Amino acid sequence: MNLSIDAHIQQLQSVSQASLIVVSGPSGAGKGTIVNQALQRLHDVRLSVSMTTRPPRPGEVEGQSYFFTDHAHFETLIEHGAFLEYARYNGNYYGTPKAFVMEALQAGQDVILEIEVQGAEQVRQNWAARMVQIFVLPPSETDLKARLTGRQTESPEAIAQRLEKVTQECAQIPHYDYYIINDQLTDAVDDMLAIVRAERQKIKKESVL
Amino acid sequence: MNLSIDAHIQQLQSVSQASLIVVSGPSGAGKGTIVNQALQRLHDVRLSVSMTTRPPRPGEVEGQSYFFTDHAHFETLIEHGAFLEYARYNGNYYGTPKAFVMEALQAGQDVILEIEVQGAEQVRQNWAARMVQIFVLPPSETDLKARLTGRQTESPEAIAQRLEKVTQECAQIPHYDYYIINDQLTDAVDDMLAIVRAERQKIKKESVL
Repeated sequence: MNLSIDAHIQQLQSVSQASLIVVSGPSGAGKGTIVNQALQRLHDVRLSVSMTTRPPRPGEVEGQSYFFTDHAHFETLIEHGAFLEYARYNGNYYGTPKAFVMEALQAGQDVILEIEVQGAEQVRQNWAARMVQIFVLPPSETDLKARLTGRQTESPEAIAQRLEKVTQECAQIPHYDYYIINDQLTDAVDDMLAIVRAERQKIKKESVL
Repeated sequence: MNLSIDAHIQQLQSVSQASLIVVSGPSGAGKGTIVNQALQRLHDVRLSVSMTTRPPRPGEVEGQSYFFTDHAHFETLIEHGAFLEYARYNGNYYGTPKAFVMEALQAGQDVILEIEVQGAEQVRQNWAARMVQIFVLPPSETDLKARLTGRQTESPEAIAQRLEKVTQECAQIPHYDYYIINDQLTDAVDDMLAIVRAERQKIKKESVL
């Protein structure tokens, strides 16, 4: 049976096709800046907010910067499988609550998740539905070194360690769908916007048949 | 062995990853207009020029509108497998020369191919390398009818036949990668530009590993 044109259009635009957009990459590549600027020009996209057990810093807003909670509650949520990914740094937990992401996607809204490369690996293992993975890179190793050195907060050894970590993270690139090289920020933001827009025009094989 | 950041960047940007961008869809959906407007804002993209045996019309330019040739030459080229796709309408041949497409892609330039749905099927069967397939749709059946009726050059029977053909062509949608609904032309052009831009940021699995 052939569908009418209108039935095809309706199927292509069905809201069930929202995507989880994972933006990851080495620390220092500027993924946070790209995501924040892109969000200002994107409609119907939600930014996933992480949960943490670390105390709020001045100016941080509950539900915007983070969802703040205590250790006991966080560990209960872990046991209930409530996180897409989580990790512990310096004695505090950080994680991505699954419920928020699910609800937004079910309402037909794309969700952006800006996370570390290790967190992205966890998401990849736990997530079966539509996921778009973007890897953000610095323009060069020289540039990244200059950024890290420019901060003047880290020893040469710490910087060498960071660069080694970046190299390991880059080995994950083949698992991603897209890359963005953050040379000129406006270009990088335009890349991000193009990827989100193009993904919305994708013909999702599973639902079109 | 881990590659350096710079080696990863170089691999991601390697010119061997240019794409053949096939833009197809029903006649009357406006694919030609979208492609022409998009080309004005795209760099490093070539538009494939068809070859035909029909005589040039006033104003048509050799190598821009078409490559013009005679039947004998066209048939020799068919025998040599020189076309990505070809068809015969009203006693004349129309085809897409393979050499132009190959040379542009090898030079690292994306190539846009604006062709009929049947031609796109031939390309799909003959082409192994990177291909991005975009299907352009009218905003609705009512709209398409209005456009066809507006031309006032066709009988009701001819219009009914065209709509039946469109329905058949729409059944090919699952073979495509992206769709564009040509409701507002500027939006449709922006969709096209986003797709081309996003495709350039794609991590091509075969070459990254």
